[in-house]
Amino acid sequence: MDDPAFSALRIDSERLQASFDELAQIGATPEGGVHRPALSEVHLEARRWFLAQAKRAGLDVYVDGAGNHCALLRCGPAGGPTLLLGSHLDSVPQGGRFDGALGVLAALEVLQVVKARGLALNAHLEAIDFTDEEGHLVGLLGSLALAGQLREEHLQHPHGGRESFLEALDRAWLREGDLLAAARDPAGIAGYLELHIEQGPRLYDQGIAIGVVTSVVGIRSYRIRFVGRADHAGTTPMESRRDAAQGASAFTLAARELVVRDFPGGVVNVGNMEFYPAAFNVVPGMATLALQFRAEQMGTLEAMEAALLEQASLAAARFGLDLETERLESIAPAQMDARMQGAIARASDLLGLKHTFLTSGAGHDAQAMSSICSSGMIFVPSVGGFSHSAREFTAWQDCVNGANVLLQTALALT
Amino acid sequence: MDDPAFSALRIDSERLQASFDELAQIGATPEGGVHRPALSEVHLEARRWFLAQAKRAGLDVYVDGAGNHCALLRCGPAGGPTLLLGSHLDSVPQGGRFDGALGVLAALEVLQVVKARGLALNAHLEAIDFTDEEGHLVGLLGSLALAGQLREEHLQHPHGGRESFLEALDRAWLREGDLLAAARDPAGIAGYLELHIEQGPRLYDQGIAIGVVTSVVGIRSYRIRFVGRADHAGTTPMESRRDAAQGASAFTLAARELVVRDFPGGVVNVGNMEFYPAAFNVVPGMATLALQFRAEQMGTLEAMEAALLEQASLAAARFGLDLETERLESIAPAQMDARMQGAIARASDLLGLKHTFLTSGAGHDAQAMSSICSSGMIFVPSVGGFSHSAREFTAWQDCVNGANVLLQTALALT
Repeated sequence: MDDPAFSALRIDSERLQASFDELAQIGATPEGGVHRPALSEVHLEARRWFLAQAKRAGLDVYVDGAGNHCALLRCGPAGGPTLLLGSHLDSVPQGGRFDGALGVLAALEVLQVVKARGLALNAHLEAIDFTDEEGHLVGLLGSLALAGQLREEHLQHPHGGRESFLEALDRAWLREGDLLAAARDPAGIAGYLELHIEQGPRLYDQGIAIGVVTSVVGIRSYRIRFVGRADHAGTTPMESRRDAAQGASAFTLAARELVVRDFPGGVVNVGNMEFYPAAFNVVPGMATLALQFRAEQMGTLEAMEAALLEQASLAAARFGLDLETERLESIAPAQMDARMQGAIARASDLLGLKHTFLTSGAGHDAQAMSSICSSGMIFVPSVGGFSHSAREFTAWQDCVNGANVLLQTALALT
Repeated sequence: MDDPAFSALRIDSERLQASFDELAQIGATPEGGVHRPALSEVHLEARRWFLAQAKRAGLDVYVDGAGNHCALLRCGPAGGPTLLLGSHLDSVPQGGRFDGALGVLAALEVLQVVKARGLALNAHLEAIDFTDEEGHLVGLLGSLALAGQLREEHLQHPHGGRESFLEALDRAWLREGDLLAAARDPAGIAGYLELHIEQGPRLYDQGIAIGVVTSVVGIRSYRIRFVGRADHAGTTPMESRRDAAQGASAFTLAARELVVRDFPGGVVNVGNMEFYPAAFNVVPGMATLALQFRAEQMGTLEAMEAALLEQASLAAARFGLDLETERLESIAPAQMDARMQGAIARASDLLGLKHTFLTSGAGHDAQAMSSICSSGMIFVPSVGGFSHSAREFTAWQDCVNGANVLLQTALALT
C-alpha cells in the first residue's frame, strides 16, 4: 500500500535489540556464537521462546506439519492472501548469532509495528521460522515442505543418517507423513520476503548498507565414501595397504584444485571426514567425506558435479579403493522476483540507504519459496564477511536498517 | 629343567579351544571379530572372566596396581623367581579374536598342564594379562608400569585425551598413583615369554609354523593438528579460505610418499582425522590427525620423526594454517634375549616344527619387559597376514603348535 503516512513508520530498535540479545542466550557458546543445530533441545527451546514472544505481542501462533513456527497478524481483507516474512532459528554447529535469527526477529518486529498502528493492508502478514534451513538433517526442510517441494527421497538421505533424523523428529513431535503433507496453497500466499546477513564481504568492503539479492546459488551435497581394508598399521607393508585415508586426502586436494581452476565463482567444501575404525594403529578401512559444492547456474552446477565425481573415481583407483557416492541434497539456483527487487531498492531509497544488487553464495529458504511465490531477499553487511562461526558480526545500525527496509518493502507490497 | 619326561608333555588342545571360543564371545562383533578397547566395560568383563577361569583351575589370582590381571602357580622353590608368560585381552576397535587373547590363554593352559602333573620347577610360573597393550589409552600401559618404565608424562598424554582416560581408570577402579608405583623387583623375575600371532604374512606365505622373534620395532605416535579458520562454505571465496582439511590431506599424502621413498621397511599411518566443526556447509577450522610410525632402529625412527614433522610444517605453510604437534607415545625398538631365542628354536625342533627368525613390525608387551628381564616371543602364522580386523585368523593347529612351543620353552627355561 502506497500511503504517505506509512513511509514514516520505523521499527522499534530497542525492542528488536532486547529480543535479539535474549534469543542469543539460547545455545550461547563461550566464543560468543550460538550452537543450535536443527531440532536439538536448544533449538527447540529457541522456537518455544519465539512463539511465546509472538503470543505476548498478541499475535496468533501455530506450528505447521513441517514444524515451521508461525506468527500471524490478520491485517488484510477476510479471505485475502498472506505475505510471509521469515528466516530460521537453527544454526550450524558453533555458528553465529545473526544468521537466520535476525530475519525471524525482524519479521516479528514488522508485525508488531503494523499491529500497534492497527493498519489495514491488502494482505495478512505472517512471521515464520522455518525448520532446518542449515541442513543439519535436511537442508531447507521447512521451506521445501511448505512449498510442496519436499520429496520422500529427501527424507531417505538426511545428512546425519536416518537414525538421528528419526530421533530428531521424535524430539520435536514431528512425523514424516506430516512433513510431506505440509504444502500450502500458493493462491493464499502474496509473496515471501527475507532479511538476512550477507555472510560474505562485499557490502562491508564497499560500505553499502543494503544488498538487493538477484539470485541464490544452487547447492549439491554428497556423502563420498572410500572403502579400503582395515589392517595392522605395523605389520602390513606400505605397498600392500588399501588405505582409505589416502583416497580421501587425494580427493580433498583435487576437488579444491579443480574448482579453483575450472569453475571460477563456484565453491567446494569437504566439511567433514570420518575414519573407520579410527585408531592410531589400524590402517583406515573406510573414510566418509561430507562434500558440498555451489554454483550460480544450473549448467555449471551439473558440470562441477560430474568433474568432482570423476576426481573421486580417480582417487579411489589410484589407491586401490572402492568408491560409494550418495547425493544427499540438490537445491536449484533460484531467481529472486524482479518486482520484489524493485520494491526493496525503492524502500532503501526512501530510507536514504545505499543499495547494490548481488547474488547470494549462501543457500536460503527464499530458494524453496521462489518456486511457489514471488520472493525477495534483503542483505545487510557482515563485518569481514565472516559467517558460520562465532566471529560472525553485523553492526546494530545495519540490522536496524535492514529491518526498516523489510518493513517498508512489506508495506509497499501490501 | 631338562627332564626327558617333560619333553613328552603337551597342552590340552580341546580345553584351550573351549576357553578361546568362550572368550571370543565377550565383545564379539557381527563380522566375527571382537571389540574390546582397553578398560571398556566389555574388556573388564573379559578380564573378570579370565580371573574366574584361573581360579577354577586352582591358581592364585591377583590384580596389581596397573590393573594387570595375574594367575600364579607356585611350582618353584620357596623365594625363587617367577617366569612370566603373558599377553593382553584388550583389542583395537573392531579387532580380531587372536591378537593378545591367544597368548594369555596359552599361558593359562601351560600353568594348568604343569599344575596337573604337580611338577616342581626352578621357577614359579605366572600367566599375565597386561593392561592396554593396544594403546586405546596409553600403549603398553600395564607392561611399562610393571617394568618401572611408566612416567607421569605418559599419563598426561593418553591417546583419547585426559578426560576419557580418567573415566576409564574410574571404571576399572585404578588410580594414577598406583599405576606409577606398580613396578616389580626385577630380581624376582626369571624372564618373560609371549606367544602371539604374527599379524603379518611372512610365516603364512612361507609355510613355516613358528617364528622366533629377534627384535620388536620402535613406535612413535603423535597428535597433529592443523588450525585454520571456520568459515561459511558458500560465501567465502576459495582463495581466502584457511581450510584445515587441505593441510591434513596434503600431509597425509606426503607422509606416505616420504616413508615409501626414504624409509624402506619403515611404516607410517594416519589412522584417524577429526574435523571441527564438521558440517557440510562450514569450511573446517581444525583437523586433528592420529599419526603413528615405526622403525626397527632407533636412528631410523628419529630420522622419520624429523622428516614427518617437516612435512607437517610444509603442509601447514602451503595452506596458511597453524600447526600443533604433540608426541603421545614413544616406544624404543627392543632386542629379544639370545638365550630365549635359542630355547624357542630348540622347543620347535623338539616338536618337529619348522621355525624361522624374524623381527616384529607390531609392538608388544615384550618390548617393555625386555628392559628389565630376558624376554622372548613366539609367533604363529596369520592367514593372509591380516590383523587388527575381523579378518584376522590363525589355523587352530598353528595355535596349538604355538602353545606347545610356549610350554616346552617355559619348561626348558625353568
